Amino acid sequence: MSGRAFQLVLQYDGTDFSGWQVQPETRTVQGVLESVLARLCGAPVRVTGAGRTDAGVHARGQAAGVEVPSHWTPERLRHVLNAQLPDDVYVAAVHAMQPEFHARFSATSRRYSYSVGLDEAARSPFRRRWEWPVSKPVDSDALAWCAASLLGEHRFFGFAVRGTAPVEDDHRCEIRLARWRAVPGGLVFDVEANRFLHHMVRFLVGTMLDVATDQRPREEFSALLAAETNDEVSPPAPACGLCLEQVTYPAALYLTA
Amino acid sequence: MSGRAFQLVLQYDGTDFSGWQVQPETRTVQGVLESVLARLCGAPVRVTGAGRTDAGVHARGQAAGVEVPSHWTPERLRHVLNAQLPDDVYVAAVHAMQPEFHARFSATSRRYSYSVGLDEAARSPFRRRWEWPVSKPVDSDALAWCAASLLGEHRFFGFAVRGTAPVEDDHRCEIRLARWRAVPGGLVFDVEANRFLHHMVRFLVGTMLDVATDQRPREEFSALLAAETNDEVSPPAPACGLCLEQVTYPAALYLTA
Repeated sequence: MSGRAFQLVLQYDGTDFSGWQVQPETRTVQGVLESVLARLCGAPVRVTGAGRTDAGVHARGQAAGVEVPSHWTPERLRHVLNAQLPDDVYVAAVHAMQPEFHARFSATSRRYSYSVGLDEAARSPFRRRWEWPVSKPVDSDALAWCAASLLGEHRFFGFAVRGTAPVEDDHRCEIRLARWRAVPGGLVFDVEANRFLHHMVRFLVGTMLDVATDQRPREEFSALLAAETNDEVSPPAPACGLCLEQVTYPAALYLTA
Repeated sequence: MSGRAFQLVLQYDGTDFSGWQVQPETRTVQGVLESVLARLCGAPVRVTGAGRTDAGVHARGQAAGVEVPSHWTPERLRHVLNAQLPDDVYVAAVHAMQPEFHARFSATSRRYSYSVGLDEAARSPFRRRWEWPVSKPVDSDALAWCAASLLGEHRFFGFAVRGTAPVEDDHRCEIRLARWRAVPGGLVFDVEANRFLHHMVRFLVGTMLDVATDQRPREEFSALLAAETNDEVSPPAPACGLCLEQVTYPAALYLTA
């Protein structure tokens, strides 16, 4: 199909999805999108995500690339998609892109947030879909210390699932933003990088929380940042607290109307 | 069973429940609570709600009465219940009550909120579980006018489902609070009364929004407040925007430790 390259900016509640990527017999965000798009376009449409979120992970700004027949306009596609998609996926925006746009390879930056609930009400049904409730006292100085040590370039072997990246991958990520901020009832970790390894944010948060609740000394966090294996990493924080907030592309890839 | 009278203060996400009241073959809040309590207490436990929320209606402060074996303390029951209940129900508090406490008949006041989303983001999966997204321009003066006219005692035949109250019921409710307030991205209607008729808040909101979006003149709202039938009422606002916020009991019914 020769068509137009569009970027979809997607929001979803990951709770009832088995993650982003199409899999047989399970409900995934990519699968739901591809089936609605195939119906709209009368032919299979491949949806390429900027990144593959895990089961239970949310998005306020996942980006996806699609090529659709040339009679579609961004506003029209957005409207029709939202009318047909289930309530837990929403197309926040559609942008017309240059033909060389690729949702994954063109992305220059990804930003995630991870929400931790610290008060009693964090366990309420209104919050536990989106937060990890932690009941131990948390040392926010320790969190700030860990976050600050993340900034810059590191090889993240210590915080990656073994064997998920190609052997030749150097696990190098450049962390451009890493900070914990207080919100009512809890804390949010904001982190932005050129790329992330599989499970990396959840491993980082799980280990930082172990440090901040006196389960582990700070030095072990530093050691993991320099490690060649993930043998000493803490268990990953639960998926529900994680949200893909934004994917950034070079301005030159956007078609101007 | 001779036991202790407890009040449970309950929060739930109503999305995946067919309402409060036990029904065969469907998932209800009362049903889920009774089955967990029966397992904990080794005998059937009847749970009496302050009011029956409809399918899809949420609660941040539903109240329920239970009688449990006398070895239970409020804190212990709350802890064990929360460990066993599914993620969409949460026991926010348990209070020991005087034996004459009755969750429905002892209540002196109920307060509901109804959330309307007015901006584009109200359709996102993070908000549409809890809000009614309205895309027409809304006249907030008209909403304030309608809310003010509700205060005091009225016979709410015009805003009630026909045939759901006993024939001799006079449909009289005393409205103690009725106001619309602005929140980021939308509006919330707060309403408190000694009691509410079935569907009444949703009928009120549906009709007020018709007035505020120029579908109906204000006079029709006034006329419905004086009407003897519901023939002219607007369709009820969707369940998802409604939340039972609080139920009030006389202080004398609480056991002091």
